[in-house]
Amino acid sequence: MLFFNEGRRVEVSIEDNVNVGELSGADSLLKTLVNCDVQVCFANPGTSEMHFVRAIDKIQGIRAVLGLFEGVVTGAADGYARMTGKPAATLLHLGPGLANGMANLHNARKAQVPMVNIIGNHATTHQRFDAPLTSDVTALANAASHWVVACRGPKTLAADAARAVQAAQAPPGHIASVIVPADAAWLPAERPASRLPVIKSTSVSDTAIAQSLAALRSGDQVSFLLRGDMLRGVGLQAAGRIASATGARLFCDTFAPRLERGAGRVPIHRMPYRAASALDLLKGTKTLILVGTQAPISFFAYPNQPSELTPEGCELLVLAHPHEDGGGALEALAEALGARLSGEVSQRENFALPTDGTLTAESIMQIIAHYLPENAIVSDEGVTASLPYYGMLQTTAPHDHLNLTGGSIGGGLPVATGAAIACPDRKVFALEGDGSAMYTLQALWTQAREKLDVTTILYANRSYKVLVEELKIVGAGQIGTKALSMLDLHDPTLNWVKLAEGMGVEAVRVEDTRSLADVLQSAVIGHGPRLIEAVL
Amino acid sequence: MLFFNEGRRVEVSIEDNVNVGELSGADSLLKTLVNCDVQVCFANPGTSEMHFVRAIDKIQGIRAVLGLFEGVVTGAADGYARMTGKPAATLLHLGPGLANGMANLHNARKAQVPMVNIIGNHATTHQRFDAPLTSDVTALANAASHWVVACRGPKTLAADAARAVQAAQAPPGHIASVIVPADAAWLPAERPASRLPVIKSTSVSDTAIAQSLAALRSGDQVSFLLRGDMLRGVGLQAAGRIASATGARLFCDTFAPRLERGAGRVPIHRMPYRAASALDLLKGTKTLILVGTQAPISFFAYPNQPSELTPEGCELLVLAHPHEDGGGALEALAEALGARLSGEVSQRENFALPTDGTLTAESIMQIIAHYLPENAIVSDEGVTASLPYYGMLQTTAPHDHLNLTGGSIGGGLPVATGAAIACPDRKVFALEGDGSAMYTLQALWTQAREKLDVTTILYANRSYKVLVEELKIVGAGQIGTKALSMLDLHDPTLNWVKLAEGMGVEAVRVEDTRSLADVLQSAVIGHGPRLIEAVL
Repeated sequence: MLFFNEGRRVEVSIEDNVNVGELSGADSLLKTLVNCDVQVCFANPGTSEMHFVRAIDKIQGIRAVLGLFEGVVTGAADGYARMTGKPAATLLHLGPGLANGMANLHNARKAQVPMVNIIGNHATTHQRFDAPLTSDVTALANAASHWVVACRGPKTLAADAARAVQAAQAPPGHIASVIVPADAAWLPAERPASRLPVIKSTSVSDTAIAQSLAALRSGDQVSFLLRGDMLRGVGLQAAGRIASATGARLFCDTFAPRLERGAGRVPIHRMPYRAASALDLLKGTKTLILVGTQAPISFFAYPNQPSELTPEGCELLVLAHPHEDGGGALEALAEALGARLSGEVSQRENFALPTDGTLTAESIMQIIAHYLPENAIVSDEGVTASLPYYGMLQTTAPHDHLNLTGGSIGGGLPVATGAAIACPDRKVFALEGDGSAMYTLQALWTQAREKLDVTTILYANRSYKVLVEELKIVGAGQIGTKALSMLDLHDPTLNWVKLAEGMGVEAVRVEDTRSLADVLQSAVIGHGPRLIEAVL
Repeated sequence: MLFFNEGRRVEVSIEDNVNVGELSGADSLLKTLVNCDVQVCFANPGTSEMHFVRAIDKIQGIRAVLGLFEGVVTGAADGYARMTGKPAATLLHLGPGLANGMANLHNARKAQVPMVNIIGNHATTHQRFDAPLTSDVTALANAASHWVVACRGPKTLAADAARAVQAAQAPPGHIASVIVPADAAWLPAERPASRLPVIKSTSVSDTAIAQSLAALRSGDQVSFLLRGDMLRGVGLQAAGRIASATGARLFCDTFAPRLERGAGRVPIHRMPYRAASALDLLKGTKTLILVGTQAPISFFAYPNQPSELTPEGCELLVLAHPHEDGGGALEALAEALGARLSGEVSQRENFALPTDGTLTAESIMQIIAHYLPENAIVSDEGVTASLPYYGMLQTTAPHDHLNLTGGSIGGGLPVATGAAIACPDRKVFALEGDGSAMYTLQALWTQAREKLDVTTILYANRSYKVLVEELKIVGAGQIGTKALSMLDLHDPTLNWVKLAEGMGVEAVRVEDTRSLADVLQSAVIGHGPRLIEAVL
């Protein structure tokens, strides 16, 4: 059994720490999670979870990480899962605690990551009263999860936890929630459960592979749209081999959960955010092969614009559903095509630092591209600032790119936090819009407490800039001052240096390219959390 | 028709501003809200709400207030409603926006305030796709609201809005939610609706009054437990008359939504937070008369402790359900008893400033009691710091006291924000624990933008202190360092001066009583938001 100790994994025995006769429900649940290889619990506990907090002391093998708001807790569990493929546990306080974490559960659900939420509830004897914190926890959990068990007593908690981990890890990844009444946590429990078999992804049928093969051999333009495991490792390599052998084009969803990029990686075109650009890009494609994703759709609907972005006359083929082994299917395709053992990959570009001193979204990305170290993780919630210059990162040092999958702003800082917990030896960058960062700025405190190696680049454009653009696009006409004030973050101007320092994170404001370059260089050399407010 | 203009109410005509033929659904909805006397919209809009943002420009009579997180939006609408008795509108962005506002909707629901949520959703044509922001908005709205309408098109929006306002204002106050697809907002709409009749509270039956009268005349010990309108104005005075005439004792719920207190007001005993103390206090009561509330229950359940706090042998009588006219019933009782026209009220005490320099929860409250100006509003989320010294405020200048009704921390700063919007001529104090304030600290930015007269007293005890106490009470045994780290907010220490200044709010840290007294005195004289970090 492995567990984390100050960022390092240590081999220990966990079997002899607990006298089973003395186990409470909370002990048994937590021990079961450890047995199921859950190594981290992101937590914001309350009174109904006090026995779990006590169990965290008693049960070895699980690292507890406090978030000062539940959106940090669930977003960090998302980031952790994206980088490890394993579920973290979250510990949430009744309905309101779950509700606070729900927006980032939404993002995590769209990222298709595994996660196990432990949601405290009032004792079963107390639930019939309308106490202040009483709410319909099950209804909330159902809205936020794929899999929910509302536990009734301590005897089933261990089994419930083992089943939750199994459900969470069923491909492609699910949100599993265990609702635990306080008395189930404090009463004597059954022995901890051992791990249930891990559900593997299903193999893709020969028929599906043959269909794709026929399309690739037809001579017509074929494109792939990829998501999930296919965007890294062997899946990505297989896709690259197919592209090299056939001329098929490779696309990924606009907001793919995780994507291996940079030098040495197979380049993938990101589907544009705007519907018209997406349709343009796919024009000419006769067959669009879906691997682990759905047919392309626009982010929002707009008056007189299509939602479906599959061009007219383009046939859709599903090579692999999200729960299927898309990587294996791509490898089988590559083999059948007799593709070379490696496809074309990106070459590293030597990004010069900007000569102009003006900080723009473009010059910021140029500086990031210059300094990005090998094997970095980029949590990208830069929205209007980072999206147009995302292409640059394809020719930098190899790295992982994590996106805001569910469109609910406030994911980026927590995801970076969880990714840093998962990968203590890798540099994490969070690209953040100021509007987005304000949603879950409490994540900075957790970064400071856990001394995480996260550098946040805060694009300070002082507005919900995406909305200023959206207001024009939806055809909502002229913008008056009253409307504009709903989209503008001036008056007062946020001071991100103070906000970050207020939570123990070193911070600096930069207003020209030279300063940003200097600060970023020192951030790359150093270790620990810091924030750079880049004023646009 | 009244509307706010830079904090002042101005008389204007709104009938001629809009050419009905050109109304979009958003226009018609917003105009209907104005027709229904909804004067403020707390908002955090997104793309699907852009036509509302546009409508905010076109339609006069509604003030739009931006919150940088939806918990600020819903909490502010709660505070506004507590002080005006009228619903504000909120503008929320799809399921995740609603989810972010849900914890404070929980508090608002428990406060029984009126509120109208306008929740944007994807266009009806877009809802069948699994777009990034797609979620089950109706399920979420149902969990968060008393009344929900999922609108299908622009033609019913005006009627839906009028019905929502009526539902929100049905006694004692309800959370009404209108889910508005983007195309319903942008398509041509029906004319705006006029206001529906306001639903009045139901009169209490003569039988119920006679029952209470008999109990009061029996000579046995009678106590009242009050909530809602009965805690202010004529209801409170009637309760005081009854108490003076009969010796009956007056209690309110531990977390009453709003309570008139201070000199000249009838003193009400607050039910203690701890079950044992509550049972002690009610001991000897033969009849407990409930007015606008339920039988007393404990906040949480604990091993081997009761949830129900009605003493053995005590009879419960419901004088008025929450939707009934409890104030009228109390007046009828007072008349029947021939009670004098005024009951005993609190006398003002001259609170000396502490002579000891040490800042404690007690000395802080003593200084607040000394300086509290006439007619202030106190939003109290001080938790362990303010609760024990709450009694002091009974003999200060008259003021309104607002509590954290639903136990979901993060209500206090937003409620203070909304109360200040509602009452621009009154001084607002927010008493805040550091753990609680971190949940919705974004409220400070709205206070700065709107130049609200809110002084926040931040009790910096650097912990979830209530949980340290709870951990002992639930019998969870010895606390180890790992468990303690889940309850402790040191490492790093939050710097509230920087956090507040980062959002444009003047702030100062004080570490002794003299400094706090000086700063508080200047805050009372001055105007505008400020934060005082009082280090415990």
